[in-house]
Amino acid sequence: MASPNNDENNNEMVVTPWEVKGKVDYERLIREFGTQPLTPELLAKLETYTNKLHLQIERRIFFSHRDVDTVLKLYEQGIKFVLYTGRGPSGPVHIGHLIPWIFTRHLQEKFKTRLYFQMTDDEKFLIDDQRTLADTQKWSYENALDLIAVGFKPEDTFIIYDSQDMDLLYDITLEVAKRITYSTARSTFGFQDSTNIGWVYWPAIQAAPCFIHKKLTGENVPALIPAAIDQDPYWRVTRDIAQKLGYYKPAQIHCRFLPGLGAGGKMSASMPETSIFTIDPPDVVKKKIWNAFTGGKGTAAEQRKLGADPTVCSIFQYYFFLFEESNEKLAERERKCRSGETLCGECKKDIAEKLNQFLEAHRERREKAKDTIEQYHVKRK
Amino acid sequence: MASPNNDENNNEMVVTPWEVKGKVDYERLIREFGTQPLTPELLAKLETYTNKLHLQIERRIFFSHRDVDTVLKLYEQGIKFVLYTGRGPSGPVHIGHLIPWIFTRHLQEKFKTRLYFQMTDDEKFLIDDQRTLADTQKWSYENALDLIAVGFKPEDTFIIYDSQDMDLLYDITLEVAKRITYSTARSTFGFQDSTNIGWVYWPAIQAAPCFIHKKLTGENVPALIPAAIDQDPYWRVTRDIAQKLGYYKPAQIHCRFLPGLGAGGKMSASMPETSIFTIDPPDVVKKKIWNAFTGGKGTAAEQRKLGADPTVCSIFQYYFFLFEESNEKLAERERKCRSGETLCGECKKDIAEKLNQFLEAHRERREKAKDTIEQYHVKRK
Repeated sequence: MASPNNDENNNEMVVTPWEVKGKVDYERLIREFGTQPLTPELLAKLETYTNKLHLQIERRIFFSHRDVDTVLKLYEQGIKFVLYTGRGPSGPVHIGHLIPWIFTRHLQEKFKTRLYFQMTDDEKFLIDDQRTLADTQKWSYENALDLIAVGFKPEDTFIIYDSQDMDLLYDITLEVAKRITYSTARSTFGFQDSTNIGWVYWPAIQAAPCFIHKKLTGENVPALIPAAIDQDPYWRVTRDIAQKLGYYKPAQIHCRFLPGLGAGGKMSASMPETSIFTIDPPDVVKKKIWNAFTGGKGTAAEQRKLGADPTVCSIFQYYFFLFEESNEKLAERERKCRSGETLCGECKKDIAEKLNQFLEAHRERREKAKDTIEQYHVKRK
Repeated sequence: MASPNNDENNNEMVVTPWEVKGKVDYERLIREFGTQPLTPELLAKLETYTNKLHLQIERRIFFSHRDVDTVLKLYEQGIKFVLYTGRGPSGPVHIGHLIPWIFTRHLQEKFKTRLYFQMTDDEKFLIDDQRTLADTQKWSYENALDLIAVGFKPEDTFIIYDSQDMDLLYDITLEVAKRITYSTARSTFGFQDSTNIGWVYWPAIQAAPCFIHKKLTGENVPALIPAAIDQDPYWRVTRDIAQKLGYYKPAQIHCRFLPGLGAGGKMSASMPETSIFTIDPPDVVKKKIWNAFTGGKGTAAEQRKLGADPTVCSIFQYYFFLFEESNEKLAERERKCRSGETLCGECKKDIAEKLNQFLEAHRERREKAKDTIEQYHVKRK
């Protein structure tokens, strides 16, 4: 099976909470960030709780962690955990955003545990000169509909909208902020003299939901954070101070990014044609997929003869991440690609249909979420 | 009449929002901070609204300003203003704290205007390693009782407790923080690499109440801030960005510090014997006054012969700031001091009695404030 992002040219890799650029070398991130790979022992233990390993674990879409072993050990001793993740609401949600949410919902179901979800409308406002708070608040609402459409249970899901709910977080952010010097923040996040002071403070706000469960319920349990690995720097500083504040260190499980539809897996908000958004109508989906970068050859005849390369194909990643759950069928698709039996147009037609079916059902649930969204708001609980 | 703080040795003067040290040269502060002295024209205009100039204006206890002329011009055009001041609740309130509150109440009465009062329990927590948030929250409550005892009207007085009410301020703090770079904050407040990121953000929080009136009522009016001059740096950065955000620049009127009872007017929270706290029982007041530094001579005989120096006397300042409203009587007291007719013991006995009477009445109102304190909370409005 082709592994995602079989990178050769890593020169330009940039992975920070605000920017992901170049080909991402995940092995190198594990080394540089100092996280742990998922070991067979850990997976075996996880399997005892989830019956079957989730597709995203099995395929190492979630590939790295901190302290998941500790969290499971505590769980065995009767100390539960809460889930915490979030979203920077700066625009519409795309398929790549749904991937870790689908896995998070799986954890919520299997471990019957609570999810705190932070809508960081404040951060997205602070880090972009052009963006207004009204914009990010609008996207908070829109993105929450997508989150709910993934199937989270209202009784176990607590959405925190930063700009509305700061009174709930503020005392915790103060305790955190007091223990992070400017020098630590600068070296962790690369702040500069021109960085605004809101951005400088913000790491304390992203830390706060790790600890909010104790405030709301009195229970001191660890938080487990499923999130893309670019967010790791936030949790590093949070982990450094958690125990001083009387909390468990937050544990993390890190996922890869779904590559974009452009050449080299490029995907960015400024290039909407490289992502499939949940609000894209069927013809837009078809067009984006039709223009997607694949590992195919210049002509059909050439491809029939020489085969194509699924390791660089953006369409193949859609099967790998979400749309082909059977390993056998995925291997078969890869084989037929390499041998030239399948041409790119066939895969494109097929994935566009699958995507549109998926999105139609998602949008139906998303529409219904407009009636239930208040049930998820942390303040209504 | 002796003017307060007729300083000769200014070498050690330090005046920042967190530290006031050495003999304070107020003329130099006007020059260095770039504020305006109160001119006869401005006082004449103020007098038309207040009938008689308040004692604290007449004696230049309030001595400097920014934009009070602009605020009065707008007032003539029918655009009112709101008052805004605050308190860092790190301990009990002393007489020196009451001085600007008494003047603020006068402005509230004469201009029939609203006061926003910020209890900065968050700041006091952030700037002191040893202090807990529970401590500063306790002092917020205690200090609010003192504020109310000064006689502010509940219908026109809105107390903001930062650590409780951040949801009301937060969107404004974000707009402010986005427009202050770390480099501006560092040069204005002297932040260092070891400063915690909460402290770095905090100037945005002190700015927010300048602009809250528009959010709560829809009216865009300027804020006038009566406060000790050490707080000026906060308003400098706030003034720089106010108009970009669509608000008036906050105006200020600056007061002097009531000198402490120690030699050289020294007063500090770590030396409680140099201040009279509102909760000091009568015998403690007597003892502190008895030990106060005066301009007297070594022996009664010597003083009868040579006279004493009221300009360095901490007791004389109590008359000047609060306890002798008659200019004639104050001049007479000064004359008798200089001539040796009055000995220090007489003034001390007299001021201790006046203080205890004042404090007894204050504490009676303070006790009653326990029943009304909720009426002043911005969130109950």
